[in-house]
Amino acid sequence: MNKWQGPGIPDQAFLRVDGIPMTKQEIRAISLSKMRLFPGAVIYDIGAGSGSVAIECKLLVPEAEVYAVEREARAVQLIHRNSERFGVDIHVIEGLAPACLVSLPPADRIFLGGSGGYIAEILSSCDRLLQENGRIVINAVSLHTLEEARRFFTAKNYCCEIIQVQIAVHQFKGDAEFWQARNPITIISAEKQGVRR
Amino acid sequence: MNKWQGPGIPDQAFLRVDGIPMTKQEIRAISLSKMRLFPGAVIYDIGAGSGSVAIECKLLVPEAEVYAVEREARAVQLIHRNSERFGVDIHVIEGLAPACLVSLPPADRIFLGGSGGYIAEILSSCDRLLQENGRIVINAVSLHTLEEARRFFTAKNYCCEIIQVQIAVHQFKGDAEFWQARNPITIISAEKQGVRR
Amino acid sequence: MNKWQGPGIPDQAFLRVDGIPMTKQEIRAISLSKMRLFPGAVIYDIGAGSGSVAIECKLLVPEAEVYAVEREARAVQLIHRNSERFGVDIHVIEGLAPACLVSLPPADRIFLGGSGGYIAEILSSCDRLLQENGRIVINAVSLHTLEEARRFFTAKNYCCEIIQVQIAVHQFKGDAEFWQARNPITIISAEKQGVRR
Amino acid sequence: MNKWQGPGIPDQAFLRVDGIPMTKQEIRAISLSKMRLFPGAVIYDIGAGSGSVAIECKLLVPEAEVYAVEREARAVQLIHRNSERFGVDIHVIEGLAPACLVSLPPADRIFLGGSGGYIAEILSSCDRLLQENGRIVINAVSLHTLEEARRFFTAKNYCCEIIQVQIAVHQFKGDAEFWQARNPITIISAEKQGVRR
Repeated sequence: MNKWQGPGIPDQAFLRVDGIPMTKQEIRAISLSKMRLFPGAVIYDIGAGSGSVAIECKLLVPEAEVYAVEREARAVQLIHRNSERFGVDIHVIEGLAPACLVSLPPADRIFLGGSGGYIAEILSSCDRLLQENGRIVINAVSLHTLEEARRFFTAKNYCCEIIQVQIAVHQFKGDAEFWQARNPITIISAEKQGVRR
Repeated sequence: MNKWQGPGIPDQAFLRVDGIPMTKQEIRAISLSKMRLFPGAVIYDIGAGSGSVAIECKLLVPEAEVYAVEREARAVQLIHRNSERFGVDIHVIEGLAPACLVSLPPADRIFLGGSGGYIAEILSSCDRLLQENGRIVINAVSLHTLEEARRFFTAKNYCCEIIQVQIAVHQFKGDAEFWQARNPITIISAEKQGVRR
Repeated sequence: MNKWQGPGIPDQAFLRVDGIPMTKQEIRAISLSKMRLFPGAVIYDIGAGSGSVAIECKLLVPEAEVYAVEREARAVQLIHRNSERFGVDIHVIEGLAPACLVSLPPADRIFLGGSGGYIAEILSSCDRLLQENGRIVINAVSLHTLEEARRFFTAKNYCCEIIQVQIAVHQFKGDAEFWQARNPITIISAEKQGVRR
Repeated sequence: MNKWQGPGIPDQAFLRVDGIPMTKQEIRAISLSKMRLFPGAVIYDIGAGSGSVAIECKLLVPEAEVYAVEREARAVQLIHRNSERFGVDIHVIEGLAPACLVSLPPADRIFLGGSGGYIAEILSSCDRLLQENGRIVINAVSLHTLEEARRFFTAKNYCCEIIQVQIAVHQFKGDAEFWQARNPITIISAEKQGVRR
């Protein structure tokens, strides 16, 4: 039996490398919940960073096909090492989205953790690659990403939910204790409407 | 294939009854993640309300034994109906915690969604019933629950993490749009230390 | 000596009417702080609602000229009654912004508590009416207002600060206690750059 | 005319020294509002740090007597320099609370920004020194301070309000923008009941 079968991998179980972002446990849990994974799903994790979302997807739904897309070579290495650590078999695609998405099979679920400023272009490609009733979940840290995503999903008539999540962690430092705030994250969950005949 | 295999059951998929609380999707996702479920685990959901946590536990880990403990008859009925709806087989225990816990097998994981003011007594019982390295996850809405839990876990030398989660949901109302805040929830995750020899 | 000389008027000191919004004490305190009032300032409170911001401005800086602009007749009456209650002499303008702003003297400080959907038009007028180094403070509840304000102030080269404020109030209800969240407010503070020669 | 007459001193207007805390503008504005200052009030600022609360009190209510109490010599120097900068005349008391409070005249208003772990002792002294209908406002970063204050004010039958404030500031960093969270602060405002005859 593997130690981590998910859900619920604590952050410290992942290997980390300085400067490569990781979706934290709480935000990962909500995002995975919003994705509504299912067996057999084709899943993209775009801007995969440390690979934590892609890996927990695969642990939760072993029958899924998971594609972790990442442009930075160091992060790609890290994703490989983390996949190995958790014993999961995911596809790691080194390349810049949206260009590198074209060779992938159509997606049922897309997680977008980081857009590197290309949010509009990435969403256009994702829309073409996404199956009917497919879902896109975005973690936005910037107003720009939120504005662009909102505009896009409204124009394309996606069914869209937007929430903001703020986490504070109780910490000790010497004799003192305090709540340490994490930066707020906006989570946008959008579902592509099926064709109405 | 069942429609909901979790993770990720939206709130509206559950049957609701007025006045019976339900752990909302986002808090449920984080709480389940903090519980670190595993196949074969014995799980209590104390103050189970609508049964959403117990049901999603069972969907995530079908090999687990899940006990939903609830004192109110109407809620017990609702848990039964929700279990049926999701096709899961959980044990529903009608009774007041901690008294009704004594007949249960030792627990690996305990979720405490509501304590009805008996937090100190419930934690004492849970501590006796919890296996070594077992975990308790509490959703606290009151300072009282947080204070009591903190005191208890410190005294008993549990390894304890406390986070606060605030969710705001973007809403439309006529022409207006706004962020609607949910009340903040404190999530306490505590792990019982194994005996050191 | 008047009982309320501010700062620090509790919400219950104001007369209220159902359906007429009031800027709550905490958000009022921050907004007034961001306005950087000074003696002799000409101040607009646009969408004045219950009049709480206009009245506290006048109490803080008795030498200021304060214009409370409000389109709804019932609210206008309420502002008059609240002004009387606090013994302050402010100008209450009944009318729809931006149209009704044209007759006012140039402003040093503008507070925008509600835009009724005309944010772009109101900001254009405010920009024309605002003195160099004048300040505009906006309380936004919607993403739309935030997006429009951001675009406007960027285009016009205002010096702009954006913060989000979330307040939770500890409440008792019967035996239970809990944190009650208020909806988050975004406060945008913008300063018009003086002409550089 | 002095440049800063308050309310509304931006943080960068104060001199700062590494390691000496300062109550930030937004929390200062709310705290001052909760204090309900009045002309002639005797005010303590205990754990005055950079002096920002004491100084803004004096600017808002020039007729008040303001005592800034601080145990650390470097902070005492900083308070003197900041007072000079803003041209206000406040009493700076170097010493450890509660011991050093005994020589002060009875207080109408007390602000407690930092307790250095002696919250119970400080509150006992403050209670003896506080006039009937006097007010104490506490900024708590720790659960411990909140618990102790709550217990104390309940036992002493103060009229008590507790709020939690979370601020996020919109920031730019290179090409990226994001919301930067400040740590949440709990603000406890308590009023001493007058003797009932």
